Amino acid sequence: MSESSYKRLDHGDIEAIRAIIGDDTRLLYGVDLPEDYSHDELGGVASYPDIVVRVKTAQEVSRVMKYAWDNNIPVTPRGAGTGLVGSSVAMEHGIMLDTTLMDSILELDEENLTLTVEPGVLLMDLAAFVEDHGFFYPPDPGEKSATIGGNISTNAGGMRAVKYGVTRDFVRGLEVVLPDGRIVEFGGKVVKNSSGYDLKDLMIGSEGTLGVITKAILKLLPKPEKTLSLLVPFGTLQQAIDTVPVIVKSRHIPTAIEFMERQVIVDAEEYLGKPFPDKSADAYLLLKFDGSSQEEVDAAYEAVADLCLEQGALDVLISDTEEREESIWKARGAFLEAIKGSTTLMDEVDMVVPRNCVNDMVAYFDEVQAAAGLRIKSFGHAGDGNLHAYLLKDDLSDEEWKRRLDVAMELVYKKARELHGQVSGEHGIGFAKKPYLKEALPEADLELMNGIKAVFDPKNLLNPHKIAQA
Amino acid sequence: MSESSYKRLDHGDIEAIRAIIGDDTRLLYGVDLPEDYSHDELGGVASYPDIVVRVKTAQEVSRVMKYAWDNNIPVTPRGAGTGLVGSSVAMEHGIMLDTTLMDSILELDEENLTLTVEPGVLLMDLAAFVEDHGFFYPPDPGEKSATIGGNISTNAGGMRAVKYGVTRDFVRGLEVVLPDGRIVEFGGKVVKNSSGYDLKDLMIGSEGTLGVITKAILKLLPKPEKTLSLLVPFGTLQQAIDTVPVIVKSRHIPTAIEFMERQVIVDAEEYLGKPFPDKSADAYLLLKFDGSSQEEVDAAYEAVADLCLEQGALDVLISDTEEREESIWKARGAFLEAIKGSTTLMDEVDMVVPRNCVNDMVAYFDEVQAAAGLRIKSFGHAGDGNLHAYLLKDDLSDEEWKRRLDVAMELVYKKARELHGQVSGEHGIGFAKKPYLKEALPEADLELMNGIKAVFDPKNLLNPHKIAQA
Repeated sequence: MSESSYKRLDHGDIEAIRAIIGDDTRLLYGVDLPEDYSHDELGGVASYPDIVVRVKTAQEVSRVMKYAWDNNIPVTPRGAGTGLVGSSVAMEHGIMLDTTLMDSILELDEENLTLTVEPGVLLMDLAAFVEDHGFFYPPDPGEKSATIGGNISTNAGGMRAVKYGVTRDFVRGLEVVLPDGRIVEFGGKVVKNSSGYDLKDLMIGSEGTLGVITKAILKLLPKPEKTLSLLVPFGTLQQAIDTVPVIVKSRHIPTAIEFMERQVIVDAEEYLGKPFPDKSADAYLLLKFDGSSQEEVDAAYEAVADLCLEQGALDVLISDTEEREESIWKARGAFLEAIKGSTTLMDEVDMVVPRNCVNDMVAYFDEVQAAAGLRIKSFGHAGDGNLHAYLLKDDLSDEEWKRRLDVAMELVYKKARELHGQVSGEHGIGFAKKPYLKEALPEADLELMNGIKAVFDPKNLLNPHKIAQA
Repeated sequence: MSESSYKRLDHGDIEAIRAIIGDDTRLLYGVDLPEDYSHDELGGVASYPDIVVRVKTAQEVSRVMKYAWDNNIPVTPRGAGTGLVGSSVAMEHGIMLDTTLMDSILELDEENLTLTVEPGVLLMDLAAFVEDHGFFYPPDPGEKSATIGGNISTNAGGMRAVKYGVTRDFVRGLEVVLPDGRIVEFGGKVVKNSSGYDLKDLMIGSEGTLGVITKAILKLLPKPEKTLSLLVPFGTLQQAIDTVPVIVKSRHIPTAIEFMERQVIVDAEEYLGKPFPDKSADAYLLLKFDGSSQEEVDAAYEAVADLCLEQGALDVLISDTEEREESIWKARGAFLEAIKGSTTLMDEVDMVVPRNCVNDMVAYFDEVQAAAGLRIKSFGHAGDGNLHAYLLKDDLSDEEWKRRLDVAMELVYKKARELHGQVSGEHGIGFAKKPYLKEALPEADLELMNGIKAVFDPKNLLNPHKIAQA
């Protein structure tokens, strides 16, 4: 990174921000600044902001942003800090806007099937609220303690994407503070919209580089009456994954199709201290079905269960009680933490490939393990082609880890390109995946992205050095 | 419009284009240029291109575009010319790229549930092709002879948006020729994508101002096994429309919810020369249901039928034969042509409002009719808040028509803004709706849109004077 021309905060700046916020307990700086704010859940990318401002309203965001604009101070928005690519790390210091206190659910509109929320609402609280009211917000990323603002900023996907799509598909409108402090709205409660360029979808997935999200109008669905899961053991991982395109082709679309290997299950059992219903097989598919009636769900799962057995599944375990459902999906939700617990440090890959290429990619991880000399664990969304592979440091020296990691990453992303995949399915690019985005996209795409960034943020103040930037 | 600095085509330019295309039958200019190419389906916005090039490949588009770029010649892409806002009218003359010969269906990928097409494929041909193969492309705009490229360029919606969403929701990837001739791809076959700014969604709905679409990868669904329609007569239009939020709230989501008044049905009968199943009532809701089993469809329609009767419906007519289905939906499809046939000239409004505001808007049309002194016919997508209102010239003088139309348009769009609606639900902005977009959006939004336009098209060659431009 070249020497910065940004202003570092001085006493006067802090006083000015204090005057805007008027509440000392919401300003964190100096010795009071917790270490947590210097990084997200990814190790290896760290930088401290000069100050953290725990904003409460769009007006506050606007006024702080305007002050930063006038004084050439970089600003990094941050939700719960659960990101995995260093997106919410203040690479150029300056002001960090922590939105977690903006955690109100503002309106449930049952006539328009929308939920209006502040950006700091946690995904788990949002899901519980709508379900209590008989509704359903389908996006279901594994990290339930992420904020909805963070989910929108990365276009988080999750397990139900097979049937329902991703966060983008459930955002109808956004209130956004632009880098110069102006507050704008993109979209609204309307179901259709062809009124000029799609600024709303441009904001979604822009990782806090184009504006600060201060409100979101989400689309809801009626809550499915019935759900049911199948845990399907296979003799080999390849057999399990080869079954996925067969299911997709069969036209009985499950809500989720996940794959997992025995070792990850064992790690999760250990992490949770709870037994998993089955770990006798080498590999598993975990399928979820939902629908408006028992008949609908039964018809779908029975057809898919038969298909799995035809493809060589060892058994089909039906989970139709809430208790059993919870034990299975809780284990699935703990995979990442369990893998983390099994090593000293890790990095991750979140590529997405066409769903009939998942097996090519997973098989290739074995080659990469051997070629690069490090352990790789993968699990993920077999039904939508989004693979999470975790590269583990174990007891490698820092230097050796860095070297082997680079080799592995190069190989993995090269293969993803060959399979017409993309660098990120749901975690974003942030700081850590920039080199791979550059290799993956044609120069024209990168030029367009940086051009768009300059339109929104001509002073390059908002979350610099992310996505397509140097 | 200020005097143009664009180059008008001369003999040398035509020879250069001839050298690129190498097929004289695909160049139309001078006396051979049909009048059709000077306008779309909207009356009142007309301008001739200097030449129409009937392109066949992305390479041809790229080479023509590059020539235009090097010589400062404006370029207007055009599909079937069925637009309603003057989007594909060559306001600055120059080159028109007619994509209707690029009409190949390139690949049906059953494992990834995608269909790859050229932009000139007609919607009706696309729908028939996928249905023949047991699949389903849900977007269903009334104009079946539009091209898929045109549908993508306006983010066309259609009747099934209530359940399935709009064109945007079914485009996974695009191949695009940029204004400088470079060919790029946005998105792909992947189901999820968080790899930088969402250029794909920016292209969708950009009405040929950012790039020329030369290929699209569409998402398919399995074809629903069962469908069924309900025609529900009501004593008043207000009663009919008031029932819609009640249905939405009930959680039995129909595929489509349309409303119509008797006079439009009478006009359609006359236009088609075929009787409609019922025209005894003043107003109707037309509902469609689909699902994977008879039981699922039956459960939904029975619940909704009961709700309609509770809300005062006079009857519920069930249409469950293919013949009857066709007669009803064919009539619905003929509304626009039927209204056109009932007057001398018309203009249209395609606003979208939150769906619980449809009645406010429709009731307001009556006030506008009186205030402006012209006839207004409306029908539309009650289930998604997208209203089509047709303002009819009848035997007004040109001058009087223009005057009254302006009054009516101002009133209608003002009301839409009050209801937190948007200027266009699915037809786009093009040339005709620019003044209303300007009134509807904050200055910041227009600046961002024009900034984005300049990033893609710094010479402003591609379809100038559209959307947010002067």
